[in-house]
Amino acid sequence: MTERLQSLHLDLGKHGYNIEIGYGLLNDKTCFTNFLDGRSLAIVSDETVAPLYLAGLEKILKPKQTMVMKTGEQYKTLDTFAEISEQLLRKNMGRQTVLFALGGGVVGDLTGFVAACYQRGIDFVQLPTTLLAQVDSSVGGKTGVNHPLGKNMIGAFHQPKAVVADLKALETLPERELSAGLAEVIKYGLIADANFFAWLEEHLELLHKKDGRSFSERSRHSLAYAVHRSCEIKAAIVKQDELENGPRMLLNLGHTFGHAIETASGYEYLHGEAVACGLALAMKLSTQLGHTNASQLQRVVRLLERGGLPTRLPASCSADTMLELMARDKKNRAGQQSLVLLETIGKAYVERAIERKTLESFLRKL
Amino acid sequence: MTERLQSLHLDLGKHGYNIEIGYGLLNDKTCFTNFLDGRSLAIVSDETVAPLYLAGLEKILKPKQTMVMKTGEQYKTLDTFAEISEQLLRKNMGRQTVLFALGGGVVGDLTGFVAACYQRGIDFVQLPTTLLAQVDSSVGGKTGVNHPLGKNMIGAFHQPKAVVADLKALETLPERELSAGLAEVIKYGLIADANFFAWLEEHLELLHKKDGRSFSERSRHSLAYAVHRSCEIKAAIVKQDELENGPRMLLNLGHTFGHAIETASGYEYLHGEAVACGLALAMKLSTQLGHTNASQLQRVVRLLERGGLPTRLPASCSADTMLELMARDKKNRAGQQSLVLLETIGKAYVERAIERKTLESFLRKL
Repeated sequence: MTERLQSLHLDLGKHGYNIEIGYGLLNDKTCFTNFLDGRSLAIVSDETVAPLYLAGLEKILKPKQTMVMKTGEQYKTLDTFAEISEQLLRKNMGRQTVLFALGGGVVGDLTGFVAACYQRGIDFVQLPTTLLAQVDSSVGGKTGVNHPLGKNMIGAFHQPKAVVADLKALETLPERELSAGLAEVIKYGLIADANFFAWLEEHLELLHKKDGRSFSERSRHSLAYAVHRSCEIKAAIVKQDELENGPRMLLNLGHTFGHAIETASGYEYLHGEAVACGLALAMKLSTQLGHTNASQLQRVVRLLERGGLPTRLPASCSADTMLELMARDKKNRAGQQSLVLLETIGKAYVERAIERKTLESFLRKL
Repeated sequence: MTERLQSLHLDLGKHGYNIEIGYGLLNDKTCFTNFLDGRSLAIVSDETVAPLYLAGLEKILKPKQTMVMKTGEQYKTLDTFAEISEQLLRKNMGRQTVLFALGGGVVGDLTGFVAACYQRGIDFVQLPTTLLAQVDSSVGGKTGVNHPLGKNMIGAFHQPKAVVADLKALETLPERELSAGLAEVIKYGLIADANFFAWLEEHLELLHKKDGRSFSERSRHSLAYAVHRSCEIKAAIVKQDELENGPRMLLNLGHTFGHAIETASGYEYLHGEAVACGLALAMKLSTQLGHTNASQLQRVVRLLERGGLPTRLPASCSADTMLELMARDKKNRAGQQSLVLLETIGKAYVERAIERKTLESFLRKL
């Protein structure tokens, strides 16, 4: 069964592209006709996703090359970047090559970065197979790799030529990973749309309920709506600020805490789980600063918990380590600690210079 | 003594920047006032250039960090890229950092690529200290590193915020390197300006004649004109085609042969020397194809020789290796061998599909 459920266009002029959301799209040739024009195609996937979806996709794309990387955030490194680039070179893949990223955020970020740099830039397509990648990392052109000293520290802004989000792929996603994606979905409600947040409070269970192995029709439509609305909010913000000089920073709600948690805990938490903690912390700090109130804080924590997400700092994250790691955040300017906080549910803002002692005492008291 | 001799603006809209050409500019604080606004500054140089010009520059810029890499094309690698990025991370250098590339093409390309990718892109300034870098690699935003399988295979288009070309730095440049730069200067005449080519035939000796250690006033002004006219031609082409989809390929006259020569000979030739060979070969092939004639070919070979440049393929470059390496050229499309050739002196064109057997018999007969 193939169902095209939602689609939208991210309007970035010459760099604009379509995002297709549906069920079974990875087996729908019509999603890929733009790329079946004789150019050389190559697929990058990982050891988890490849056994599930690669064969079907290869039948459609007939790629000149397929590369399967090890699974996990710990392989989103400059080493893997170099390996994939080398494999492309060994096959004499030229500048007209199109790279397809089949997998979650790790595969997408890494493949996108290879595409950004291979022969100074080639086309690529995102085929996100996790909820997190569908609602966040595959859209907006952020690509990159991690460094032991921080996440995504080396990378590029490089927009894909298309995003094809197949909800069917979420059926094989472990519950924990689906939950991790919900953290980003909830984030969009928090930063930009109180109604969407309220809709999530109504529909959250539908977003991860499966009848046996398949999503029910209601779940499929709810998921399609959640993914579409998330992408829409992200697209509107990215359109205003492709290179993250201003409003785009709002998308980092929960991420300054989240990235520090990931690094401090040695990636014990999935990205989405760390972001969920970060959202709870940002909400808590916003409440302490008098912007939001205790009942709003309670709603956010409750929704995250219903999503199966952690809301407390893991024991491995000391206040000192957190402070040091947060000081390295890419959004900081001139030594000032930036942080995205909430005015209210549905409205975030960038705090450009949070005082170190405020942050320190906040973290110590947790 | 400080003399501002020429300047031009490369108009790329938001990405536009000024190119200042003069004598003693590395000690002229007024060239750097735009960057002395409190942002964190860092300098990258190499072991050859640092002892000569770093101290003076540090006095002006007061950088938070200085990094000195080993000298040579063989260090323009992903490893050095990773090292410099890591050093920036260790000092918590943020997104507002400005990187200064003090050196030749290797330092400029590598530093530019670090700037392109560090935290997904920071500002950088080119301070080219070789003639080749002043007339070519520092202008136009091509950055990158080499791979054992080919030159500049990993990189990005990332424009500098300014280029400051100090002719005084050429006084300490070995003759051989100055000659290598002349190859690119001659290239500009060949691709776009027959009058400039004729001017070079009149003035070539002035461009590398030094009175003792310093350039004479006539040499300074001739050099300033040659650098300015070269940058002007390059700027006009880059403006039409920043990302090398069309006319920018003309700038690669001699480079498809040249890159193959560099790789095949294990970098026995300097880049400019390999390009000089490549120019002679492109001219020879253009003549065989009936575009240019024997007397034009003779003028080109003669001018290159007066510049102290090689015009013949080194013995280490077999026809087979050359063919294989040329097949990897980034400009090739859909398996077709592209090559920049000449219609006449002052007018180059892109040959999109040179027949393999034409190229093969040409190379075998050399």
